[in-house]
Formats: sequence, structure tokens, C-alpha cells
Amino acid sequence: MKKPGLVCSILSQKGHCNLSPLKIDKQKGSIMERSEILQKFIRVRKFTEELCGTLETEDYVIQPVADVSPAKWHLAHTTWFFETFLLREFERDFKPYHHLYNFLYNSYYYHAGERWDRPERGNLSRPTVKEIYHYREAVTGKMQILIDRVSETQWKEFSDRVILGINHEQQHQELLLTDIKYLFGLNPLYPVYKKEKSNTGQSSLPESSFITIKSGMRTLGFGDKGFCYDNEQPAHQVYVNDFKLQNRLVTNGEYLDFIKDNGYNDFRHWLSDGWDAVQVNKWKAPLYWRKIDDAWFEFTLSGLRKLDLHAPVTHISHYEADAYASWMKRRLPTEAEWEIAAREQKISSEEGNFVDDGYFHPVMPKNPSGRLTQMFGDVWEWTGSAYLPHPGYRRAGGALGEYNGKFMSNQMVLKGGSCATSRDHIRLTYRNFFQPDKRWQFTGIRLAGDV
Amino acid sequence: MKKPGLVCSILSQKGHCNLSPLKIDKQKGSIMERSEILQKFIRVRKFTEELCGTLETEDYVIQPVADVSPAKWHLAHTTWFFETFLLREFERDFKPYHHLYNFLYNSYYYHAGERWDRPERGNLSRPTVKEIYHYREAVTGKMQILIDRVSETQWKEFSDRVILGINHEQQHQELLLTDIKYLFGLNPLYPVYKKEKSNTGQSSLPESSFITIKSGMRTLGFGDKGFCYDNEQPAHQVYVNDFKLQNRLVTNGEYLDFIKDNGYNDFRHWLSDGWDAVQVNKWKAPLYWRKIDDAWFEFTLSGLRKLDLHAPVTHISHYEADAYASWMKRRLPTEAEWEIAAREQKISSEEGNFVDDGYFHPVMPKNPSGRLTQMFGDVWEWTGSAYLPHPGYRRAGGALGEYNGKFMSNQMVLKGGSCATSRDHIRLTYRNFFQPDKRWQFTGIRLAGDV
Amino acid sequence: MKKPGLVCSILSQKGHCNLSPLKIDKQKGSIMERSEILQKFIRVRKFTEELCGTLETEDYVIQPVADVSPAKWHLAHTTWFFETFLLREFERDFKPYHHLYNFLYNSYYYHAGERWDRPERGNLSRPTVKEIYHYREAVTGKMQILIDRVSETQWKEFSDRVILGINHEQQHQELLLTDIKYLFGLNPLYPVYKKEKSNTGQSSLPESSFITIKSGMRTLGFGDKGFCYDNEQPAHQVYVNDFKLQNRLVTNGEYLDFIKDNGYNDFRHWLSDGWDAVQVNKWKAPLYWRKIDDAWFEFTLSGLRKLDLHAPVTHISHYEADAYASWMKRRLPTEAEWEIAAREQKISSEEGNFVDDGYFHPVMPKNPSGRLTQMFGDVWEWTGSAYLPHPGYRRAGGALGEYNGKFMSNQMVLKGGSCATSRDHIRLTYRNFFQPDKRWQFTGIRLAGDV
Amino acid sequence: MKKPGLVCSILSQKGHCNLSPLKIDKQKGSIMERSEILQKFIRVRKFTEELCGTLETEDYVIQPVADVSPAKWHLAHTTWFFETFLLREFERDFKPYHHLYNFLYNSYYYHAGERWDRPERGNLSRPTVKEIYHYREAVTGKMQILIDRVSETQWKEFSDRVILGINHEQQHQELLLTDIKYLFGLNPLYPVYKKEKSNTGQSSLPESSFITIKSGMRTLGFGDKGFCYDNEQPAHQVYVNDFKLQNRLVTNGEYLDFIKDNGYNDFRHWLSDGWDAVQVNKWKAPLYWRKIDDAWFEFTLSGLRKLDLHAPVTHISHYEADAYASWMKRRLPTEAEWEIAAREQKISSEEGNFVDDGYFHPVMPKNPSGRLTQMFGDVWEWTGSAYLPHPGYRRAGGALGEYNGKFMSNQMVLKGGSCATSRDHIRLTYRNFFQPDKRWQFTGIRLAGDV
Repeated sequence: MKKPGLVCSILSQKGHCNLSPLKIDKQKGSIMERSEILQKFIRVRKFTEELCGTLETEDYVIQPVADVSPAKWHLAHTTWFFETFLLREFERDFKPYHHLYNFLYNSYYYHAGERWDRPERGNLSRPTVKEIYHYREAVTGKMQILIDRVSETQWKEFSDRVILGINHEQQHQELLLTDIKYLFGLNPLYPVYKKEKSNTGQSSLPESSFITIKSGMRTLGFGDKGFCYDNEQPAHQVYVNDFKLQNRLVTNGEYLDFIKDNGYNDFRHWLSDGWDAVQVNKWKAPLYWRKIDDAWFEFTLSGLRKLDLHAPVTHISHYEADAYASWMKRRLPTEAEWEIAAREQKISSEEGNFVDDGYFHPVMPKNPSGRLTQMFGDVWEWTGSAYLPHPGYRRAGGALGEYNGKFMSNQMVLKGGSCATSRDHIRLTYRNFFQPDKRWQFTGIRLAGDV
Repeated sequence: MKKPGLVCSILSQKGHCNLSPLKIDKQKGSIMERSEILQKFIRVRKFTEELCGTLETEDYVIQPVADVSPAKWHLAHTTWFFETFLLREFERDFKPYHHLYNFLYNSYYYHAGERWDRPERGNLSRPTVKEIYHYREAVTGKMQILIDRVSETQWKEFSDRVILGINHEQQHQELLLTDIKYLFGLNPLYPVYKKEKSNTGQSSLPESSFITIKSGMRTLGFGDKGFCYDNEQPAHQVYVNDFKLQNRLVTNGEYLDFIKDNGYNDFRHWLSDGWDAVQVNKWKAPLYWRKIDDAWFEFTLSGLRKLDLHAPVTHISHYEADAYASWMKRRLPTEAEWEIAAREQKISSEEGNFVDDGYFHPVMPKNPSGRLTQMFGDVWEWTGSAYLPHPGYRRAGGALGEYNGKFMSNQMVLKGGSCATSRDHIRLTYRNFFQPDKRWQFTGIRLAGDV
Repeated sequence: MKKPGLVCSILSQKGHCNLSPLKIDKQKGSIMERSEILQKFIRVRKFTEELCGTLETEDYVIQPVADVSPAKWHLAHTTWFFETFLLREFERDFKPYHHLYNFLYNSYYYHAGERWDRPERGNLSRPTVKEIYHYREAVTGKMQILIDRVSETQWKEFSDRVILGINHEQQHQELLLTDIKYLFGLNPLYPVYKKEKSNTGQSSLPESSFITIKSGMRTLGFGDKGFCYDNEQPAHQVYVNDFKLQNRLVTNGEYLDFIKDNGYNDFRHWLSDGWDAVQVNKWKAPLYWRKIDDAWFEFTLSGLRKLDLHAPVTHISHYEADAYASWMKRRLPTEAEWEIAAREQKISSEEGNFVDDGYFHPVMPKNPSGRLTQMFGDVWEWTGSAYLPHPGYRRAGGALGEYNGKFMSNQMVLKGGSCATSRDHIRLTYRNFFQPDKRWQFTGIRLAGDV
Repeated sequence: MKKPGLVCSILSQKGHCNLSPLKIDKQKGSIMERSEILQKFIRVRKFTEELCGTLETEDYVIQPVADVSPAKWHLAHTTWFFETFLLREFERDFKPYHHLYNFLYNSYYYHAGERWDRPERGNLSRPTVKEIYHYREAVTGKMQILIDRVSETQWKEFSDRVILGINHEQQHQELLLTDIKYLFGLNPLYPVYKKEKSNTGQSSLPESSFITIKSGMRTLGFGDKGFCYDNEQPAHQVYVNDFKLQNRLVTNGEYLDFIKDNGYNDFRHWLSDGWDAVQVNKWKAPLYWRKIDDAWFEFTLSGLRKLDLHAPVTHISHYEADAYASWMKRRLPTEAEWEIAAREQKISSEEGNFVDDGYFHPVMPKNPSGRLTQMFGDVWEWTGSAYLPHPGYRRAGGALGEYNGKFMSNQMVLKGGSCATSRDHIRLTYRNFFQPDKRWQFTGIRLAGDV
């Protein structure tokens, strides 16, 4: 059996893919029971469709900029993934659902042949949304049968790929949300994706403070059982100096101080490329901030609302995060510092504000009591580390490795997941990455410093 | 009462408007009876919606290039026109249907304030198609009442504007069709807008020949009673030399000979700007021709079909028309020649293949018997004349004149209407105009020559 | 003997050439005596070099924008013209001066093979200026011998081409001056090309008035003996209405009133394309005007000086000329009107301010006494006529016709020559042409109106 | 006394500066005797001019692309540096040489006010080359006097800055050479900068092999006495795994194998951004390789010559280096690996082929005998490390820090210097940096691998 690469690419205009092929422990751990896999598969497929529950047909169609794909493309592409890498490989007498869908819904997996150009995804009114839901239904149905019937000898390889497909679809769920937000955010009618859920959290913002971590040899990267992407491996030794990490995320109010102190007009705080980006893009504030009659508002998936000064600042580029830190006479944490601190404090993803929680927006931190808060969820935290291979990482050969390390240039690592991430998708060692000028993801800031 | 300019602009990326303010005979002629106006108004509003009858919701949304507006924008903009220039002016206690629609659906009428950027029309998923149909319904309803109730003293001015609004909507009907064709034409699924109507015309292509018109002083421009655009005026004297005009349009078969003779690769036939356009756009054939396994097909509003060698060639730029003529050792007619020949031969728009006929594509000519055929309908005929003012034309002052002559640069005149034009919209003196590189309208070629 | 096309192309970024092949009366007239031709040839070659007399080596090298060629390119290209179309064709045992010069100094004469890209002309430091002067010297020398020795049977064809080469070089002399002006004009040191020659003209500006010309049939185009470009032919009949023409050029002072009246910020005066150009290019005044501490200055070939309110406005685009006329409630003259008026008033090129006069800038008009002044020289006058073929004009076949009519799109006609034109280069029927947004030539305004 | 930042920025279009402010040991070491400083100052100023010895005036003027500055700009800018940061600060009654030179020759030191735009450097024919040499002479002269006369109390600060100015000028010497090479390399006449110096080296290419370095804690960064840039500090601890490093540079012959194996057409070897760069730039080979009649040539500063298969490959981007390594199933070394290996093997810059040696091109390696060769000189070696701050590095506050860390994004580190670097300019800890798509510096490849 041919084993094509497993991975799609989803994100950037320049074609990067932040989905790396799975690395699954060879011993044990990944062979869940069929029923467990089936359940998880059904849940993730259904959740994608639930996320679209409030969309009008027109909302599915548009690609306002190359980075932002139409919702219906996400629906189709995640389906294509299962059709191509599972049904095509494991189904007897496989027949494609439609002879053009491989062409239309392959993102840019070179091995899979010609593709519809990414920036043209928004130019296709057909297939209609309804037709794509039929496509989903058909593939989901066949997948359910296959999960039940695939032979024992194929089960290991098959189930590994299903898990990959599930993780892949979760990534697209996050993109679907950030893409819809972008589309709604540019519309002067400010459509509401989901009515605001009242945040019955605590009422006062914990003070910002710094927690010190001691120097020494530590381990970085994924060394456990279970699923991870290959860019999290191998686990390896690093030496870190003493450092300190902010106990919570930087808030809108704190970021507003930077703006008020003329931050966007003072070259001294900025990386040179960042300063250029400020001029070219005419950045004056985070992506979704709007100033109306001298008051600041923020567009959210629950519509336009008054800027919440206690909520974490979000939708900022790496350049803005870096400039803010520089203005604060601090710096961004390195990837290693973030991961080491989170591990030392035994931070668990159970704590975070994820898509599962239904806020669709970062919320105020819980009272920290000397611990790091908001490490998981809320916003992806920009680090000061370039997205480069872990020592000993090797680009896989063959088709499967097509997308392995190929995005390891000109991007920065982000950690921790966001309010649009699924709780069971994230890990300490998870490495997200974007070009330093991207702002449409839920991205934010945690400061660090030397001791 | 304020009398704002009456005109919108509809077409080009560079902002041209091919709708000029009406010129209506001051004596008589334009004051139709109320019932007649009402009937015409209802018919044109309804026809716009009928033209959308086969569209899916998704088809209404997309703007694949700046020139090509979404169908739902056309539906809303033509409604905005009546709301703004009729209801707002003549209705007592006028209230806008929605406070943002003037911003969203003003094309770029500077006097009417800020506008949504033209190239961003395709980025708005809301208002939905349904909401826009409600908007249409509301405005159409109020207009019907107003046509009935407006006072006698206002009637003349009011009815002139309604006629303008009707003509305006007819222009957008044509654009709606060419925009949908563009959208469908780039889709690899080749959607069908309307099933092909069988053309039970004659079976043989009339031979091409040339009809000679004698030199002398003639009249050009509109001098009759009734409606015309101001760019057709004043009627004026011109002197023309002897010339000859082709009896029918150039066919696909004839144009294919040009391609086969390496026409697109031989700089000698081309205007310099045209040759540049060929290189930059990589033109190899008319816009909707597709070569599949060495056979030529043409995408039409009835889907992809085998190239009909006897049908008129269409969707070519002025540059291609000029290069073809040059290759044939002929030239394009001037605007004056076209208009003079049509008048001398008493060609009537009754003869043409218009949108009313339901082909949505040019068809084979009728047997000419020594007369010019296909002068009206089928395809807009590129002339060799730049779109410039008739002698004595004066840009109107004030708001109404905003769009009068402002598009009179860098465009060429086209004559006769097309298979997407309404029969009662066209005239001998009608001046359509586009930049010489545009191809998405139904444009074609009739040759001319000196004697 | 092969007879390649005779013409180069010189001007625009988009590759237009405003040099059309010669049309010389077949009977007589053009066969000057050899000594006369020789004298004229030597004079024009020498004059090119005299025009470079004040340049530093560095001034010869730079191409600040694609339109503006380096001086050394002009020196070489005009030499290449004689080498290619005279020496190569008529010299026995012709050997190219350098095997790469045909590649480097062919402008873009497609028949002559590959060419160095126009926008790259400024990237060649070698050949040096000195080497190019040697090239000139060698070709000029061989040409002198050939003028003496070419056989009687070849004389007619040979001498026609020499006359063309002379006219070609005169065109490049004008470009050389406007290109140097552009280069110096962007330099904050404001280099002086030539010290100002005191203009001992009259001291008071003649009042602006309009002279009426009567309607009727007239002749347009070149019908005399002697040299003309083919785009001036054939002479043909036209009918014109009554019209009136301004007695002198529009002055800086008058144009300043337009600026003070907010002319550059009021869309109502502008063609739509012109208004776009104003925004894109951020035009606020003519190309070489500089506002320093609230006073207006103008950069001239004699350096920066206080704006002379009585001198003709110059270095404006067609769009600005048209907007000014519109603001004045006038219009630009058509080409026919300009030519007819000048012929009726028997205006001669003897009257104008040309490069021969050494001002290198337009000057105040002489007292008109009821006549049109400044028709020739000072500035090229933008007309409202598109550059299109005269009726009956036919693009020549074969190589010679390569550049014939190929620039007849998207350009406007200018009449009368400028202070950078040679007096013996210009004619009533001369048709210069540029895209309507070009400003680096000496271009200006004369108003016209209907009667 | 005001202490403005000391540093200019020199290189990329996007504004990066690879010159960081000096860090000089506070105790001792940097206070050379005045005569020593004077001698060094004179030598470096003279060497710049010697490097221009073979240039024609025209060669000094042109900026073919934004990255590549005119030679005369380098001559003036390095002079401006001494005038601004030494004469202006330490000279009594300082008067600027010319009131516009600070505007024209400030690179983009924001604190020093407005600057002439970088991409416009090639549009200034004036000041002439001669005038710039006069400027140099004047400033050099005044500097000599000042070195002699500055007070003892100012000496420390003054001499530190002179050393910085000397290092700054050395960097521009390298750029001057690579910029001239770029200018000559695009000229079809292939000018010769300097006749080839015969390389009387050994005759056989040492075989490629790998030298293993053991894992452990090591020191990185500058911890010695003497001059370094601040980005080399602080010295700090790192842990490295076992690794191995190639004994010599990759040769043209070896790189040619990659080309022959279809390397530029096989996406599998490339980083995603690299693959995009290959398409956009149509890369088929290193920057200066030329294929003529199926034979490979290389343009060098000694003109076009047959490709030397044994010489190191050079003028390749990081992307090409990475793709080559990937194709070889190796990788690029990290910055730490390079520096650690060089330190362990006690490699000295005495060994390398530098600008002092007069080859102006990389040469064949000496016989390695188990040692690393070509670590210094020949070509800058691309590492796999992003240019980011050393742990504990802090951007200096105030003006001096303007350029400190601001280029630490989107660039990769290069090590070791090149054949255009001065021998006494380079160090083990020296960090050069460029965007990964740059090719006009002398850049090359040394492979690394895991053990």
C-alpha cells in the first residue's frame, strides 16, 4: 500500500502548514479501542458543524484575504483529508465522491497533484454549502463503517491516521473561528457570531508579578506516550539561565498604556521589520480595536463591545508583542522558558479557557496565588524563539515528510493554545508558529525577564 | 428641493461610469402616462429578479475581480438608486430603510458622501441575499405608491428620474449577466446559468461582404424626442469619406484562423499597448475559449460547449479586435461610420438578438440580402473611436454633472448592444465605452475599410 | 538589400514611440544636394554634443524612472540609428563597431532582434561615456564619407533615411534635455544645467482673450512637399463648428489661482482617471514647483528660481490641463481646431521660443495685437484629441511599418513644439503624443471654447 | 556632551544593519597608543580608496537594486560617520563640511533626523565622485589632527569610537566589493574589476569528511579583551549534543551535482519559503553562474571564467544552502556548533583567504590533515540559526541602542568572514546576518550532522 504524506497545510499565504505528521509511540498508547476512536471521530466531525450553526449561507463563501479561507472550504478540506488518507487507502473499491474534489480541496500537498490556487478559494460559488454538507455526510458515514470493519492488521496504521485526521480537523476548527471573525470584523454591520456568554468569573484583576525559575539542565520536547506532532520531538537536554515569567497575560488596559504613551509612533521600541510593518499597515492598535468618539471598542465573536481593560490583549503581531515588552523594559519568553516553567509548575490544560468553554474570547485570569495562570487557553503566547527544528529532529523522508520541517523559516513559536483551541488538542510541548506580522489568530503577550 | 446628481457609476475598476444623466426633450415626449411608467417600472424591477431565478445563494456573494460585482450588490444598488434619487427627494417624511445602506450601496457618487470601497464589495456576507430582497420589496412598494401620488407639478421631474432609474437598472441587468458569467466561467465545475435554448435559425452562414457608404456631410448624435443619455448629444454635423462596412459580425471560425495563423504571437498585428497586454495577461484566445485535448470549447451561460464556428466571436478586447482587423488588412469602423451606416440602412433594434430573446449568447446572422445584419444585439461592436465629447457637449454643472463627461479618457466607444442588453434600452446613437483591455462584456468585431 | 523598419521608439515606459516613418514626396523636394545634407547632418550631430557640454560624467549615467533615459544612452542610440539603418545598409563591407551595441542600443525595434530591457538602461556603467563618444565619432566619420560616396542610384533612398535620422536625433535632443531636467530636479542640490539667459522681452503680460474661427470645411494633415512623419498624412477634409482659441498660453499666475481655489482637492473639475492620478501620485502642483516657506519656486534648467507668474505654466499632465480648463468653464482645443486656427492666422514657427534660442524654458508672450501668440515653441499644447489615425491612414506593411500606427491608443495629441524643440523640426501638422498622465515634457495649456 | 548612537545601518532594503555598537572591555585593552590608532585609521581610509583604484567614474554612480548601493555612497557614508560621531562631538568649533551631507549620507539613523531614501541613492549624479573624494580628504585630515590633539580625559571615549568607525569602514569595504560585483555581473560586457591573481595553491581537492565534536556544556559569545560588537555578548553557557562538521566548504563541483540531479525542480529538498523563492526568482543556479553553450561559467571580480569545480560554491541564499544540505541528507550547522568547533580546534583567522590576500574570490582549501579548513575567509557560512539575542543580551537604552537588537528578526546567522572581509575584522564570535533569500554576498555552505 502506498503511504502518502498525511498532512495538509492550512495557514499562511506563503503556504505554510502548521500541522506536522504525527509521531505516535510505537509500543502502546495509541491503540484506543475502536469504540473510543469512533466516538471521538463522530464528536469532532459534529463539533465542526456545530461551530457553523449560526452562520448564514453567505458567511460560508468569502475569502477576504488570502490567509482567511471560506468556512465552506474548511468543511470540505477536512472531509477531503479523511477521504484521501483513510478511505482511498483502506476502503475496498474506493471511488472518489466527485472527480474534481481532490483538485479543489487538496490544500497544497504537492504529492497529491495539481491544486486549486489558495488565493482563489473564495472565487468558487459552487459546490454550494449544501453540496458540501452532503459530501461531509457521505464521507463521515463511510468512515464510521470503516472504523468498524478495517482489519486487525491494518488497525494500528489506520487508527494512527484517524487520530491525525481528528487533530487536523481540530486545527481547522480554530481557523474556522478566526476566519469567521476576520470576515465579520470588516463588516460595518458587525455581525454577531454567538451571543456573549456572561463571564461569572472573579471581579478583580490579579496584580502582575513575576515568578522566578532557576537555572539548570532541563528537558524540552515530547517524551511521553500518546499523540504529538513530530516537530515536538525529540525530547532533548537544554541549559537555561535563571529567568522570570509574568504570572498572567498582559491586559488590554496595560496595552492601552503603551498606545497612550505613543508606542506606535516611537521607533525606539520596535524591531526594524516591525517598524516597517507599522508604517506599511498603518497599525495603530490591535487588529479588532475600534476607536469611536474617543472611546475604545473591541470587535469580538459576540459583536462590538466596549474594550474590557482587564481581559488579555489579543490579535497582535509578534512585532507588537516585542515592542510592548521592550517598552516595559522586559522581553518575551523563549520557547524553552515557557515550556520549562509550565512543566515545573505542573500547569495542566484543564485550567484554561478553551473553545469548549464557549466564551470565544479570552477572559480575566483566576487569582493566581503565586502560580502561573492563563498558560493554557485564552491566547497563543508569542515567544522570542524562531520556529526551528529541535536538535536531532530529522525531516522525514518520502511523501510523509513533505510538510515536516518545511515551514521552519521566518516564523516564531507560540505556546499554550487559545480560547478557540480544543482543550484535548493542546500540550506543553505543542509548537504553534506564525510569521511575526500575523494578527488574525488569538495571539497575546506574557512578559519574561532575566534575573 | 435639493437636486443631487442622478447618476451612479457601475463599471470599471478605475471608476468609470457608463451611465450619463438623462437628456429628455423639454417639449413633450417624455411625459408618459402614470400607468405606463408604473408598468414599465414594475416590469424592469421584476425582470432583474427573474434574471436571478437560477442562482444559488452562494452565487450572489462573490466578487472575483474588482470589475465584477456580486449579484447581490447589483440588486441592492439599483434599489438604492430609487431610494436615494426618488424616495428621498419626493417622499414626504422619508426615512432611510437602513442607516448604513447609503454607505454600502452608493457606487461612487462623490456628492453622496463616503462609500464602501468598490474592490471590497465581495467581502460582505451581510446583509444577506434575503435581506436585500426585502429591501427591494420595500422600495419597489413605496415607489409604486409614489408614482401614483406624486403631485402634478412634480410629475415632470419625477417621471424623468424614474425613466433614468429604469434605464440604470437595465444597464445593471446586463452587468449582472456578464458578472455571473465571469464567476461561473472560472469555476472548474462550469455551472449552467440557463439551459441552452435551441436556435432554430437558418442553417448556413452568410458570406462576408462589404457594403459601401458614400462620403458627405451627415448628422451624428441624438436629435429626436424621448430619452437619451447626455453623451449622445448634441446632434452635430460631420463630414465622412467614402467607406465600407462588413455585412455581418466576424465569426469564431474566422477568428480561429487568426489564432491558427499565429496571431497572438506576431507583434506586427498589434497596437503597442495591445502587445503588452497580450504578454502580461498571457492571452491566447478570447476570454471564454477553452482548448481541451486539441478541440476548442467555449464557456457560455448555458455551460461549456463546442465552439460554434458560425457564431460571432465575443469576449475580446479592443486590442484583439484591432489586431484581427489589422491581420485582415482592414480596420475597425469609426463611431461615425457605424452610426451613419445604420441610419442610412434604417436598421432598427427590432432586428437584433437581445436579452429579451433568451439566448444569452450571440447567434448566427440572418441572411443579409445586401443589408447590414447584426448591427443591433448579439455583441457590442468595438469602434476605432475614442470616447470623447461630441462637439458642443458641455459637462453639466453642479451635482448632476458629476458623472457627465468624467469618463471621457482612455476608453473606446462600442455600438449596438448585445445579447445581454434589453431591446428597449438601445439606440442608434447609444455610446457604450470601455477601456481597450476589457473582455468580460459581450464584445465583438465588425470590419470596415476605405474605398 | 533588406530594408528593415526605419524607426526607433523613444519614450514611454509602455514602449511607445513617437517617431513615425518618414513620408517624403515622391516627386521632388527631398533630394537636397549632398553638401546641404552633409552640413545638416554634421550640425545636428554636433548640436547633440553641445547640449551635453555642461554635464559631468556622473550626469550621463542615471535612469531615475523608466521614462527617463540616461544621457549616454541617447548619445549611443542616435548613433546606433545611423549605424544600423545607413552604414549597415549602404556601406560596402560593413562591420559593426562593437558586436554588443546592436543589443544595447536598439530601443525596441522588434525586427532588429533582442534588446536590452528599457528599464535597465540605467544599470550599465560600461560602456563609459568616453567610449560612447568614440562610438559617435567613428559613426559620424563614416557617415560623412558615405554621404559623399553613395551612388546616384542609391541617393534618393539613402538621403531620405539620413533626413529621418536627423529628425530622429532632434527628437532625442529634446528628450535629453527633459531627462536631464528630471534628474537634476530630484536632486536636493538643484544642479544648474545652464546659467539663466536674461529674457529681454517685453515687461507686461498681454491680457488673455479669445479669437474666433468660423465654421466650415477645412483641410487637416500634411499636403506639402518635404519631410513629414506618416502620422501627419493623408491630408483630408474635416468640418468644424465655430470655435474660439485663447490668444496666448495659460500662465503660472493663472494656474496658481486654480491651486489656491482648491483645484487639486475638488473632484468636480477632474476626469475620473485624472482624479485617480491626483490621489495616487499625490499631485499638488506642476511637476517642478516647490513650495518653500510659503513661497512658490520652480526648478528650471537654470536651477531653482522664484516662480515667474507671467511665464506659461508647464510640466503638467493632460489631466491637469483638462481640470484647469474645466475649472475655467472652458475646454482644451481639438487637434483640428489648433491646426486650422494656426493655418488661418499663418502662424510660422519662426515666431516661437525654441531650443535654438537658448532659454531652455518658456518665456512671456510677445504682444499679440489680435493674433495668436506662442502657438509654436515654449510648451507643447495638450489637445482634447486622442492620438488616432487620420482618415485614410494605413499602417505600412513590412518592417518599416512596425512602429507606424502602433502607438495609436491611450495617448493624447500635443501641438506646436516647445522651448526644447529645434525650430526646423516642427510643423503645423506635427503630431506629438503622450499618455495623459505624463508630466516630464514641456507641456502646457491653451484654452478653447464654443461660440 | 551628547552621546548619540554610534551605529549606522548598511545593508538590506528592509533596513537591517549588521553593525552593532561596540563593546569594549572597560579595564584595559582598547586604549591603544595614539600612533597605533592613527596608523590604523590612515590605513583603513586609504584601503577604501585603493579598492576603488580600478573603477571608472561611471562605476561609482549606479544602484541597480535597493540592496546594492553606489560606490560613491559608500565613500561618502563612511566619511559622514567620522564627521558625525567624531568631529561633530569632539572638535572645537565644528562646522559641517556641507549643510546637506548629513541628510544625504546618514544611512537611516533615526536619531540623526531626516534621511535621503535608501532606494534613491542611485538617483543622485551630484555630488560628483570628485567632490566626494574632496569630502573624504577634508574629514580624514581633520581626524588626523584630532587623534593627535584630543584631550587625555576624552581619549578613552574618543578612541573607542574611532575603533568603531574603523570597523564600520571595513564592513563597507566588503559591501563596496559585493556591490561592484553585482553591478558588473549584470553587464553583458562583463567588466573586470581586477585581473586574476594566479592561485599557486595545491593542485588536488581534499576529500570531504566529517569531524566529530563531543557533547557537553560550552561557552558561546565574546568574553575576551578588545573590541567586539555587542551582539556577540554576553558570553554564556550552552549545552550541545554530539555533532559533526564537514572538514571543508562545499565546492562548485559538488553543488553542480545537486543541479544535475534536478535539485532546483524538486520541492522535496526545499523549505516552503525557499521553494517559493525559487519560483518567484526563477533561480536555476548560484547568482553568478552562467550557462553558455552547455558549459558553466562563473562571473568573478576578475571577469567571466570557466567554473572552477574545486572552488567553494558561493553567492547562494540560505534556502539553497539548506536545500543542498537536505539533498545530501545533512543539515547546516547551528551557530553554536560552528563556534564551538572552531574554538576547540583553535582555528585562527590567520589561516583564511581574506581581502588582504587579493584573490577577491574563494579558493581551493589547503590540505586539512584532520583539521577543519576554510573556517575563516573564503565565504560566509550560512548556519541554521536565526539571528536572535544571546541569553542575557539587552538592547542598550538611549540613542546608542537604536540599532542594537533591532535587526533580530527574519535573518539567519553567518560565520567566518569571506574573501572580501579584512583579516583583522573577523572573530570566532562574529555574527553576520542576512535574510535567507540574499545572494549577493560571498556566502557558502559547510555541512553538519548528528552523531
